Amino acid sequence: MDELNSHEHFMQMALKLSQEAAERGEVPIGALIVKDGTIVAQAHNEKEEAQQAIYHAEILVIKRASEALGSWRLTDCTLYVTLEPCAMCAGAIIQSRIKRVVFATRDPKAGAGGSVLNVLENKNLNHQVEIVEGVLEQECSHELKSFFRKLRL
Amino acid sequence: MDELNSHEHFMQMALKLSQEAAERGEVPIGALIVKDGTIVAQAHNEKEEAQQAIYHAEILVIKRASEALGSWRLTDCTLYVTLEPCAMCAGAIIQSRIKRVVFATRDPKAGAGGSVLNVLENKNLNHQVEIVEGVLEQECSHELKSFFRKLRL
Repeated sequence: MDELNSHEHFMQMALKLSQEAAERGEVPIGALIVKDGTIVAQAHNEKEEAQQAIYHAEILVIKRASEALGSWRLTDCTLYVTLEPCAMCAGAIIQSRIKRVVFATRDPKAGAGGSVLNVLENKNLNHQVEIVEGVLEQECSHELKSFFRKLRL
Repeated sequence: MDELNSHEHFMQMALKLSQEAAERGEVPIGALIVKDGTIVAQAHNEKEEAQQAIYHAEILVIKRASEALGSWRLTDCTLYVTLEPCAMCAGAIIQSRIKRVVFATRDPKAGAGGSVLNVLENKNLNHQVEIVEGVLEQECSHELKSFFRKLRL
């Protein structure tokens, strides 16, 4: 697979994880971490079920990847997520030294990959993260919009 | 107790938690969450022992407070922490709707309460947090400096 196909392949899996979240009444966000072309960990948002504000997909997938690799350092890992990370998740990505974040769609209300603030690329912090955005943007955005539309019915 | 004495009382306990962290080889940071004058949860940094980049004192104390209260919403809670929160922890504080953060000393390298960036008071996010800083500043700063001095020996 070339790079773009590989990004779409993994984002398709993140989208499936987001759909599993929606089926459980969670805001549909899915994430996975890939190292050397292999999936190390996957997660979806579990905030409502766990009653934990911190259980965003990105926090859970970072926790599981560190368990799988036996280290807090997730150097050379790529994190795929269906929505632009918030400040908490962007900060967790910096803390765990993840190399690259691929996200599908921007979050104009809370995004910390450039939308509301930019934690991921902040040159004053001790680590910067490469951003690839817009992969399966329409599909992931549709999943989120249709979830919130149903909530309002 | 008046408010200042109460802040010093709880920060003294956070400082003790930070010293427990240092004894276990962790960067000495302690945190607790208080609601209606009662301690709901406490934690210290467990990053190295758990090999989890996300196991900062603030993340752990938020997780434990939500377990104790049975809700992700930590409205009307105050979080005491010995060091200014990083972007991840400041974002987690926003996500959990904590009312007030009391911290002892600033973190010029990573602080997200005004030092490197300001997540806690960011008016473009959907929640803002009241900041009280400088409570037991010298004691908590000394604890951190002495830990790093020993590391370099």
